[in-house]
Amino acid sequence: MVNDARQYCYLKGPFELKFGGVLHSPTIAFETWGTLNASKDNGVLIFTGLSPSAHAASADADPSLGWWEDIVGPNKPIDTDQYFVICANSLGSCFGSTGPASINPKTEEPYRLEFPKLALEDIAATTKEVLKHLGIDSLKAVVGPSMGGMTAMGLLLKYPSICEQLLLISTASASRPFSISLRSLQRLMITSDPDWKSGQYTVDDLPLNGMKLARMLGMITYRSAAEWNQRFGRDLVPSSENRDSFFKVDFQVEQYLHNRSNDFVGSFDPNAYLYLSRAIDLFDLGAYGESLADALSGFELDKITIIGVDKDFIFPFDYQLELCNAFQENKIDCKLIQLESVQGHDSFLVDTENFGSAIRTFFT
Amino acid sequence: MVNDARQYCYLKGPFELKFGGVLHSPTIAFETWGTLNASKDNGVLIFTGLSPSAHAASADADPSLGWWEDIVGPNKPIDTDQYFVICANSLGSCFGSTGPASINPKTEEPYRLEFPKLALEDIAATTKEVLKHLGIDSLKAVVGPSMGGMTAMGLLLKYPSICEQLLLISTASASRPFSISLRSLQRLMITSDPDWKSGQYTVDDLPLNGMKLARMLGMITYRSAAEWNQRFGRDLVPSSENRDSFFKVDFQVEQYLHNRSNDFVGSFDPNAYLYLSRAIDLFDLGAYGESLADALSGFELDKITIIGVDKDFIFPFDYQLELCNAFQENKIDCKLIQLESVQGHDSFLVDTENFGSAIRTFFT
Repeated sequence: MVNDARQYCYLKGPFELKFGGVLHSPTIAFETWGTLNASKDNGVLIFTGLSPSAHAASADADPSLGWWEDIVGPNKPIDTDQYFVICANSLGSCFGSTGPASINPKTEEPYRLEFPKLALEDIAATTKEVLKHLGIDSLKAVVGPSMGGMTAMGLLLKYPSICEQLLLISTASASRPFSISLRSLQRLMITSDPDWKSGQYTVDDLPLNGMKLARMLGMITYRSAAEWNQRFGRDLVPSSENRDSFFKVDFQVEQYLHNRSNDFVGSFDPNAYLYLSRAIDLFDLGAYGESLADALSGFELDKITIIGVDKDFIFPFDYQLELCNAFQENKIDCKLIQLESVQGHDSFLVDTENFGSAIRTFFT
Repeated sequence: MVNDARQYCYLKGPFELKFGGVLHSPTIAFETWGTLNASKDNGVLIFTGLSPSAHAASADADPSLGWWEDIVGPNKPIDTDQYFVICANSLGSCFGSTGPASINPKTEEPYRLEFPKLALEDIAATTKEVLKHLGIDSLKAVVGPSMGGMTAMGLLLKYPSICEQLLLISTASASRPFSISLRSLQRLMITSDPDWKSGQYTVDDLPLNGMKLARMLGMITYRSAAEWNQRFGRDLVPSSENRDSFFKVDFQVEQYLHNRSNDFVGSFDPNAYLYLSRAIDLFDLGAYGESLADALSGFELDKITIIGVDKDFIFPFDYQLELCNAFQENKIDCKLIQLESVQGHDSFLVDTENFGSAIRTFFT
């Protein structure tokens, strides 16, 4: 038997999406850690980036390591002895929540491209249903790294007083053309793989090459040049004398990219990747007002902390500064922290020392 | 009749390459502008980046615009009224010089992957034959942007007193793992296109999709995020309401990438791209000595100028600073110029105002 800590929230009836599509009774998978107190006000909701599941941390029901294992747990920066922590798999993803690979009850086939156009606001709205399911009206805090930060702001647009505190990490109010173009290229890598078959691939015959290329581009741009100078330099792999390797793998950095991207492909549904990637491009907090500050003027928050990394290609630190300025224009107490992490956008997943310390401070 | 200003230098007999391969009587295509003076010492040699041809500027024999039209010409920063300017198509390329698409005299078939493993030092050595063919023993200056800067240093390694002055632009002594990984991914985009056919494609059936992906990644990383914020922001294309466009083109930056990359593919031989791209990765000036300064200690130069751009992802300004320090350790007069150009690595091709001025100053 597979270890599984997932619980499920079954939405009843039609769920209307931001861009007009409708899903019939979608499901959201989620996990929780810690105990909800009697007044039900110690909840901490974590929104994920594009690719993680709801399994942020290990638990008795699933002892496998979570994607934020060093951050979430007893006595950890998000302390599950103190807080009731909730993490849902995003709508549109493929780890238990309804997405393009799920069965469309109308056709009894996977949705594939019949899945409606997705917005991060839809992920926020379905996650709100999870809170309702758990009997939670308001949260101690919402935590959103990367795409999750955008989703968190999408939740606050509709429920401006849902949490006391907001922690945004390596995120932005909207994507800019540089990161849009990188994601657009990743999608083209997938959709131009003949095995994508206009989205009609089967699980036995996935567009693995397109997914591998997209993952490699992600790995390159989620990290930083400085980190790779330290880790790999120009070191060669032992077999680089091999004539056959001329267009394959000479340098250790290439071997690393090949090996790590092979680990990923096959575990994520390509169509889900396309939908979530596009949803990031389309999110635009500023479009909810006459200015960014106007758009978030309704947010009722005691405290915000925004953490960013100066070497982040995808969500450069400027984006976090812009957000902080917009909160401060609204007289919301906003603390901006720039970390010197060398791992670029992915730092929040791997630089436990710096992020752990900053997140612990946020919760004290 | 097609306009053509190319001249040809036919190397006689076997030409041995750095990595041990041999080419039989390769050809190098080149163009020249201006007049060689009686003492044959007013020559200025331009090495190109990865993709350009020898057609740096228009001339009577070929009035089409060259890739450095605003920089090379009468009264232009590289003044052809004063200098005899030479630009060759790189060995391994596909615009008249011998490369993987050329006919192998042994088999009467294109070389394809039988083309020997290529180094930038080989491009330098064959270009030296062009100078010999023109009766030029020493040059006023060598100018090398991007890959061309590496090739220029490759020439000086073998002929340390071949020029009085050296102008290096947006280049480096060696590639670092970040740019290696981007080029490695570009090559994988091409070689994983089923139409690449292990390099055995024909000109009627090119791996166009792989080339398009590789070009798009080049376009994204050769420019800068700042430029695209200015040019495109989050502007949509008019048809973005179209449901079919969900995974295609919503944003103007995406349309730009699609259109411009379509222009490129089909005009460059994919195997040539692979060879030249790998040659950039493999170049390592520092490996010629105990340190970078040691490696270039033999260079006999009156003057060096190095120009870089702070927003360059591919050859970050640090690389130019490192080079300058190494020259200065050898008491060679080196001037380092950091330009504020917003167009990233491609600035030398498009920011005529800043680059034109800096190059003009170098020549006065």
